Amino acid sequence: MEKKVLIVYAHQSAGSFSAAAKEAAVEVLKAKECSVEVSDLYAMKFKATATAEDITGKVKNSEHFRYAEETKLAWDEGRLSADITEEQRKLQEADLVIFQFPMYWFTVPAVLKGWFDRVLTLGFAYTKEKRYSNGIFKKTKALLSFTTGSQETMFSPTGINGDMNVTLWPLQNGILHYCGFQVLAPQIFWAPEDAAPEGRSAMLAAWNTRLQGLLDEKPLFFAPMDWFDCEKSFQLKPESVEKCVQEFGLTAGTHCGNHCRLITR
Amino acid sequence: MEKKVLIVYAHQSAGSFSAAAKEAAVEVLKAKECSVEVSDLYAMKFKATATAEDITGKVKNSEHFRYAEETKLAWDEGRLSADITEEQRKLQEADLVIFQFPMYWFTVPAVLKGWFDRVLTLGFAYTKEKRYSNGIFKKTKALLSFTTGSQETMFSPTGINGDMNVTLWPLQNGILHYCGFQVLAPQIFWAPEDAAPEGRSAMLAAWNTRLQGLLDEKPLFFAPMDWFDCEKSFQLKPESVEKCVQEFGLTAGTHCGNHCRLITR
Repeated sequence: MEKKVLIVYAHQSAGSFSAAAKEAAVEVLKAKECSVEVSDLYAMKFKATATAEDITGKVKNSEHFRYAEETKLAWDEGRLSADITEEQRKLQEADLVIFQFPMYWFTVPAVLKGWFDRVLTLGFAYTKEKRYSNGIFKKTKALLSFTTGSQETMFSPTGINGDMNVTLWPLQNGILHYCGFQVLAPQIFWAPEDAAPEGRSAMLAAWNTRLQGLLDEKPLFFAPMDWFDCEKSFQLKPESVEKCVQEFGLTAGTHCGNHCRLITR
Repeated sequence: MEKKVLIVYAHQSAGSFSAAAKEAAVEVLKAKECSVEVSDLYAMKFKATATAEDITGKVKNSEHFRYAEETKLAWDEGRLSADITEEQRKLQEADLVIFQFPMYWFTVPAVLKGWFDRVLTLGFAYTKEKRYSNGIFKKTKALLSFTTGSQETMFSPTGINGDMNVTLWPLQNGILHYCGFQVLAPQIFWAPEDAAPEGRSAMLAAWNTRLQGLLDEKPLFFAPMDWFDCEKSFQLKPESVEKCVQEFGLTAGTHCGNHCRLITR
């Protein structure tokens, strides 16, 4: 069956390496008979800031405006703004979502953070019952594809920036896995601006190759909900602690399933 | 001497717990004869998205617009937009910066991410030579003060969200320490919306108490630049690895200096 792909793309310039990586994904995936939609956030002038204007009509409590509760209510009643509703439609239809961006300050640029803040609303993207391995998007795959300014060695466990898995934890676990997405390994383009033209071409060629089999990749491992006591404290059950320490380490190590272990003192 | 404090505040509502925490800081610090400025990002309708409009006059390369390079040049020539220049002035004058926000998706709301993206420009806030413990803001203290939606147990090393130190790593190390700031321990208000009124009052009272001595607090420990080989790979020097593992653990554990250790396989 035809697969649907959404690319959420955040770079200001069509001449950028990020643009080339996005174009490669569009081409390869279309050739594989996927239908591909691109949300080009800068071109769309996508609103980044979460405000009461995201709700059509009256808010429930303007004196004490609470974004999550107000957007939950608006979503229930079909009163989210048109731009949010449109992104939610694209996301709901997608089998795979690729986020293509340059890393800004160890995470996504503000315009993409705004997409997460405004599109992944309570009710639509998660509830207290439906999150992590019980999450709403558990049938959807998601992938962070990004360029860095730093060289790879700086982001190693002994590098000055620390392990990239730690840096990606809030994005991969806190946003994507939290909403249930099957998180594919990140596609990291290390410092393309410092690379020679051949180096950049080689990075794009590797991405092209990976794109061929992307839809069949196995997602990263995250400790499932039933390893935790989800009635009360959301702590690892005693019998799971042992599994985590032996197999993956805790927290960052647990869920990334590779590279590093985190143990408590 | 009179100390200057900048509070960068990001909540939509004056009735929020975040607003009360911000007000407490203004009151206590003014009573201690600090001069206090507040950047109320939502009220200011602070622009979150990094675009060519942040530069007055011509950009160098509109075909291939690169934000860091273009804003570096504009900063050199005094051509950054007025809103960025004004925030840079406030930051430059401050002895202490408090970021007050509700945690959105394991990090800051987009409007505050936009403040980081747009205000902390290359040249003004960091250069290749001046970063981390050699950073430009090494005489300035900075502190994340925020509310969570989750209970504290969820953010422990054995909790489903993982260790809060890991979640804060990109912000505390990747942004604040990267620019040289002395990072004070985060002020975390755990799930005030789920607390009873007395619980919220107790949280504010504890913050009030902490604010009395805030300017004299010792910052968190981060492994200093000279523990790394900063000529080439930015890897920990062999003699520093031992120190890290014994004293603090690597990466997250290294720099937070507490709570957790991260060791490689």
